Amino acid sequence: MSNRWIACDWGTSSLRVWAMDGAEVLDSAQSGRGMGTLTPGEFPEALAELLTPDWHGPVIACGMVGARQGWVEAPYASVPCSALPEGLTRAPGDRDVYIIPGVSQDSPADVMRGEETQVAGFLALNPGWDGILCLPGTHTKWVHVSAGEIVSFKTVMSGEVFALLTKQSVLRHSMKDDWDDETFAAAVADTLSRPERLISDLFALRAGDLLHNQPHARSRLSGLLIGAELAATRAYWLGQQVAVIGADALSRAYVAALGAQGAPATQAKGDAVTLAGLTAAWRRWKDPK
Amino acid sequence: MSNRWIACDWGTSSLRVWAMDGAEVLDSAQSGRGMGTLTPGEFPEALAELLTPDWHGPVIACGMVGARQGWVEAPYASVPCSALPEGLTRAPGDRDVYIIPGVSQDSPADVMRGEETQVAGFLALNPGWDGILCLPGTHTKWVHVSAGEIVSFKTVMSGEVFALLTKQSVLRHSMKDDWDDETFAAAVADTLSRPERLISDLFALRAGDLLHNQPHARSRLSGLLIGAELAATRAYWLGQQVAVIGADALSRAYVAALGAQGAPATQAKGDAVTLAGLTAAWRRWKDPK
Repeated sequence: MSNRWIACDWGTSSLRVWAMDGAEVLDSAQSGRGMGTLTPGEFPEALAELLTPDWHGPVIACGMVGARQGWVEAPYASVPCSALPEGLTRAPGDRDVYIIPGVSQDSPADVMRGEETQVAGFLALNPGWDGILCLPGTHTKWVHVSAGEIVSFKTVMSGEVFALLTKQSVLRHSMKDDWDDETFAAAVADTLSRPERLISDLFALRAGDLLHNQPHARSRLSGLLIGAELAATRAYWLGQQVAVIGADALSRAYVAALGAQGAPATQAKGDAVTLAGLTAAWRRWKDPK
Repeated sequence: MSNRWIACDWGTSSLRVWAMDGAEVLDSAQSGRGMGTLTPGEFPEALAELLTPDWHGPVIACGMVGARQGWVEAPYASVPCSALPEGLTRAPGDRDVYIIPGVSQDSPADVMRGEETQVAGFLALNPGWDGILCLPGTHTKWVHVSAGEIVSFKTVMSGEVFALLTKQSVLRHSMKDDWDDETFAAAVADTLSRPERLISDLFALRAGDLLHNQPHARSRLSGLLIGAELAATRAYWLGQQVAVIGADALSRAYVAALGAQGAPATQAKGDAVTLAGLTAAWRRWKDPK
């Protein structure tokens, strides 16, 4: 029986696919045709345009492709649950496309789609690991993992707020590419100790630039927001084993911020864990227990 | 000597003018040609298109028209200073256009342009008033006024953050026109007592809608942000006499939020105080001491 299959990570803003033979990557491709850019009818063609005739086997997909506004809604599994919940949803169409369920939490209300597959991949690569996984991004997830299950999680929109403020707000006029680690660290400490100041510290970035040519506004804004995030998630990371999974530069910023708070965190690559999670889902699809 | 003049409130997103005879309004006009939409060379024409031949006299202007990116930069006066600082800046061109200085604060760095004229107008209408003026808007100003002077002030970008989150972020999918006063009040209390939760409470608005069809997301978001603002400005309003100046609905929300914290605030109309401030500036221009 063939071990050929296609791994697919389909988020809001991008689509990535890998031609696989078991756990081996044969080829890969990507496009900007994320869920957010597509109507339901456009999904089959957006996928097909990335695949060549020598890509074989079923497609195992995770991410926003399974949202209500996606190709087909894949129901949520509810915590506590396996990071790789049972039951794939087949997308309508000729090709065999199976979508991994997202995970929801009833109270406090929260949802994830895609990150559960990264959690499953991290656990596949680190069997028996217990602790907190932090997955920074547009919507950063903090996930409490124990005995192979997702126990609880919390989403923080710090990445989206950072993007809106740096690109669309009045602060955009003061954003330069002059990153400074010390400014970042001081800002993290500022909002961690005085989180109530965040909302009034924002405009000071603009005024400090206008009046005093104050540099490093981007580093300070990033630090203020990550400090606020750490203040909001203290119950998650304090005294816990923490691993940060994501893009390299952003992950390093989180590891540095946590380390300064006496919370040493390890770092794992986002791509590797996504692929490991999709591979675990494919194995179970191929050989259900 | 003629008492004819033209009052002008020229902000980032709009331009408003009044034909005046002393303190009497003869006519008015407005357009969307705010400073943010204009290059420096376009200011004379944007003003001229609103004036008819029977509008006479000098133009007294306040607001972002005097910013570095405006018609001509009007230097800041520095606190502590009169709400109506000495010295108007004449704009280049054939028409007599005089711009009122903005006000700056060295530390913590802060700036205002336009609100100082509203403060001056409020003081002209309420001579001898001491206390805190709150001017809600895109960039809300909290101004400590004593003995006719601006002593200190603080800008909070809560209005701009609210606009970005409701219009551009993932939360926009959950914003409906179902305002609810109780939800607003509870949210104000939430971030006032636990400001560190703000950044993680945001995504819960989306998840609560997705999972539980939770209503009133807009009211709750507004309350969370105004609660955060009140937490950041507590040193300003606690135990002080407070007046809120601005658009009616937004001002009422601030008055309600402050009232629930045992800080009764009065409300004043933004238009009236702007015109009173411009009139005070015109009087001094006409009859310098």
